[in-house]
Amino acid sequence: MAYINVPEGVPGIRSLVMFRPETGKPLYELAQVLLRGESTLSEAERELIAAYVSSRNNCMFCMSSHAAASRCLYGDEKNIVDEVLKDMPHAPISNKLKALLNIAGKVQILGKEVKVEDVEAARKLGATDREIHDTVLIAAAFCMFNRYVDGLGSWTPTDPAVYEEMGVRMSKGYVPPK
Amino acid sequence: MAYINVPEGVPGIRSLVMFRPETGKPLYELAQVLLRGESTLSEAERELIAAYVSSRNNCMFCMSSHAAASRCLYGDEKNIVDEVLKDMPHAPISNKLKALLNIAGKVQILGKEVKVEDVEAARKLGATDREIHDTVLIAAAFCMFNRYVDGLGSWTPTDPAVYEEMGVRMSKGYVPPK
Repeated sequence: MAYINVPEGVPGIRSLVMFRPETGKPLYELAQVLLRGESTLSEAERELIAAYVSSRNNCMFCMSSHAAASRCLYGDEKNIVDEVLKDMPHAPISNKLKALLNIAGKVQILGKEVKVEDVEAARKLGATDREIHDTVLIAAAFCMFNRYVDGLGSWTPTDPAVYEEMGVRMSKGYVPPK
Repeated sequence: MAYINVPEGVPGIRSLVMFRPETGKPLYELAQVLLRGESTLSEAERELIAAYVSSRNNCMFCMSSHAAASRCLYGDEKNIVDEVLKDMPHAPISNKLKALLNIAGKVQILGKEVKVEDVEAARKLGATDREIHDTVLIAAAFCMFNRYVDGLGSWTPTDPAVYEEMGVRMSKGYVPPK
C-alpha cells in the first residue's frame, strides 16, 4: 500500500498522477517528448536507456515496465534488453549505444560523474549533441521517476504478464490516466 | 564550457532549455506547478526543499539559485536558508518542516530509503498527504534537474551577486527562456 491515499489497485506512477494530475501533466509530457518524440535514437533504444537507469536505481516498477516497452519495440531483437540489463559492456549493441549507456550510468550516480572524456568517446562513435543531450536527460528524468514511484511506496505488481501488457500500451505513447 | 553546443554565456538549465525547448517546456511547467502553484507549503519552504536536495547532490548551480530564491521569499527570515543548509536538524524551522526535509533527504539517496515511519512521523506533526506527495516530488525532480545541469557540464557562475539577481527573478515564477 502506498504511503499516501492514492486509488487502490492502480500500479506505480499512474496512481500518483491520479492523486495529483497537475504535476502528472508535465511529467507525462516530458516522457512523451523524450521517449516518443522525433529523434535519431530509436524508441526501443530510448526505452532501453530508461530501463537501464531504473535497474541501477533498483526501481522494479520502472525497470520492469520500460524493459517491457523496449522489448515490445525491439520486436525480433528483444533479447537485447535482457542482455543489456545483465551485462551492458558485452551486450549485442553498437559501440555508440554502449557509449551513451555509459554516460547514462554515470548520470545515475551523479551529474558530476560525467566527464568530458565520456562525451568525447560517444561523439567519436557518431553520437550527436542532440543524442548526448537526450541521453543525459532521459537518465536524469528516470532518477526522478524512480524516486517518485518508490519514495511514495506506490504499488509494484510482481506478475510479469502485467508488465508485458503495460509495455505494449506504453509503446503506443504516454497519456496521463484520467 | 558545456559538453554540447549550447548558447554561450547563458548559465545552468537555461542554456540547455534554449538548446532543446521541446523538453524545456514540460520541465519549466513542472517547476512552476511544484514551486509556485497553490499549496499549503509556502513558496519559501518549497524553494528550501529544492536547495536542500541540490546541496546534497553537490549541484552548485541549483543549490545557489534556489537558495537565493528561498532567501528572497523568506524576506526578513532569510537566515533560515543558510541555517538549514549548514545544519538542518538544528535550524530554526518547525518540526513538521524538519520531518519533510528528512523525507526529501532520503529521496535524494534513493526512493526506497523512504520508510513508512518517516512518513508517519511527518503526518503526526501535521503534514498532509498532499504536502508529503509534493515534498517527495520536489526532491525527486531536483535529483533530475541537478543531474541534467551537471551531467552536461553547463556553466555555473561563481559570483554570488548573479545568484541574488536570479533568485529575485525566480521568485516571480518559472518561464522558459526564448
